[in-house]
Amino acid sequence: MSDLPLTPAQSQSLAEATRDAMYSRDRAAQALGIQIQAIRPGLAVLCMKVRGDMVNGHHICHGGMIFTLADTAFAYACNSYNKNTVASACNIDFLAPGREGAMLTAEAQEQSLSGRTGVYDVTVRDDSGRVIALFRGKSYRISGEVIAGLEQADHS
Amino acid sequence: MSDLPLTPAQSQSLAEATRDAMYSRDRAAQALGIQIQAIRPGLAVLCMKVRGDMVNGHHICHGGMIFTLADTAFAYACNSYNKNTVASACNIDFLAPGREGAMLTAEAQEQSLSGRTGVYDVTVRDDSGRVIALFRGKSYRISGEVIAGLEQADHS
Amino acid sequence: MSDLPLTPAQSQSLAEATRDAMYSRDRAAQALGIQIQAIRPGLAVLCMKVRGDMVNGHHICHGGMIFTLADTAFAYACNSYNKNTVASACNIDFLAPGREGAMLTAEAQEQSLSGRTGVYDVTVRDDSGRVIALFRGKSYRISGEVIAGLEQADHS
Amino acid sequence: MSDLPLTPAQSQSLAEATRDAMYSRDRAAQALGIQIQAIRPGLAVLCMKVRGDMVNGHHICHGGMIFTLADTAFAYACNSYNKNTVASACNIDFLAPGREGAMLTAEAQEQSLSGRTGVYDVTVRDDSGRVIALFRGKSYRISGEVIAGLEQADHS
Repeated sequence: MSDLPLTPAQSQSLAEATRDAMYSRDRAAQALGIQIQAIRPGLAVLCMKVRGDMVNGHHICHGGMIFTLADTAFAYACNSYNKNTVASACNIDFLAPGREGAMLTAEAQEQSLSGRTGVYDVTVRDDSGRVIALFRGKSYRISGEVIAGLEQADHS
Repeated sequence: MSDLPLTPAQSQSLAEATRDAMYSRDRAAQALGIQIQAIRPGLAVLCMKVRGDMVNGHHICHGGMIFTLADTAFAYACNSYNKNTVASACNIDFLAPGREGAMLTAEAQEQSLSGRTGVYDVTVRDDSGRVIALFRGKSYRISGEVIAGLEQADHS
Repeated sequence: MSDLPLTPAQSQSLAEATRDAMYSRDRAAQALGIQIQAIRPGLAVLCMKVRGDMVNGHHICHGGMIFTLADTAFAYACNSYNKNTVASACNIDFLAPGREGAMLTAEAQEQSLSGRTGVYDVTVRDDSGRVIALFRGKSYRISGEVIAGLEQADHS
Repeated sequence: MSDLPLTPAQSQSLAEATRDAMYSRDRAAQALGIQIQAIRPGLAVLCMKVRGDMVNGHHICHGGMIFTLADTAFAYACNSYNKNTVASACNIDFLAPGREGAMLTAEAQEQSLSGRTGVYDVTVRDDSGRVIALFRGKSYRISGEVIAGLEQADHS
């Protein structure tokens, strides 16, 4: 571990290592079939297929499942510096229904990061590219690292 | 179907019938082991045990699963008049972690209902009664009934 | 200053002294004609008349003015322990318009307070008692006291 | 009035005419010294100087005033098609304090518009370019036009 700022390549390697460590113990994401398509410092793209057991009493994808995909994308984006970070608050606007069988994609991007708190926006789209939900999450950094002992990226 | 206002007993019967109809096709709630403890017009109490496959990369209950429990309680409360109603927007504050094995309880209560839109507050507690999340959902009534052909409760 | 918990009477006196100190330097609240009707630990009731210069391009009370009244009620409630506390995030649902000349009342109540963060709900009503907005604010305690040197109420 | 889609130049002219008509009766924005720097279909940039009567009991810009600036930018952006549109819900994250004397700038951009509802994001910065608040507003189109009798832009 060093006090020098990371190079872009080191930051990217750290984001990838953090993703792998988180995903290996993220039983919820695994159980829902969520896959990680891209990771960069402060950014994550995840996808999830709407399975039959994700449908609600109105025959459309349960809003909780759409939220979970978005919240998971947010988690991978805000933990990409290898500093343990949790959600303190989130809000979501549901714009269109998610159909059973659709492949949903969530892209999370950092909007702000200062001290211990950050703001991340997530856009959820279906196969056709239609936006079905807009999510905004507020993160709070707690103590510890995702991968203990590994260097942390200093975002500031 | 009649145009007369429902009696309290009829409103309660309608809320129970709507709950049963919704739950029978709510595969997401069933798959998560969510159970409905109480239903009244504009109110619902649901519970869910935090299973091993609901835990995230920080070893605590995935925020998406807590949201899903709250969102489901919201859905049963806002559909209790047998008028098809969906979530348009939600926000959640995460106050304390949910531990694996904990039994979480979500109580949804109507705060406002006017025209097609309503506001519902949901409090999520763990076994010890500690509040772990506060959720607020905005509902929008669409066309149709949960149980087609059955009378609807006029809340106004 | 003492480490003993305050009695209810002492907590109430502290809330009143804090309100007076805050209001004396709260030029924004004064300029808007906001008045404080009630203060208790964790609770505040404020009122504001919708003046001609608070009306927007749709001829109704500007949403920002309704928000400002609610946010001010939130501020007095969350600072009532004489610990400097600021808003970190807020959301508001606008349910009905505020008419010019109406006297609006905002009641803020603490829903949760743990460590440095709290959640407060505010209901805004017009003269007729109609709810025109529901507001939820998240507070964050910073260093310092509203009245430096005076005791603080320990809410925990 | 014609059923033909507007040209980009016509849409821009309509946005400018709508801005002028709204601002002429927007006494709240005028009283706060809010000025409109840019308007385009679905976009608005506004600025406001933090005056002495906008400061709260913590000696910083009242959160309600920051919200009001953001909410006003949102209003001009979502009404830029000359269709009467109001806010149904908003949320704001406060990231840094606004100092007395600072010139704040709010930029509102449309994220989604479908049927009667839209989502707009607003970023509020101070003179130094620092982001001090992130705002998201949900709009709802009501009946009528900002400028009665003038053509409306069909955004779809």
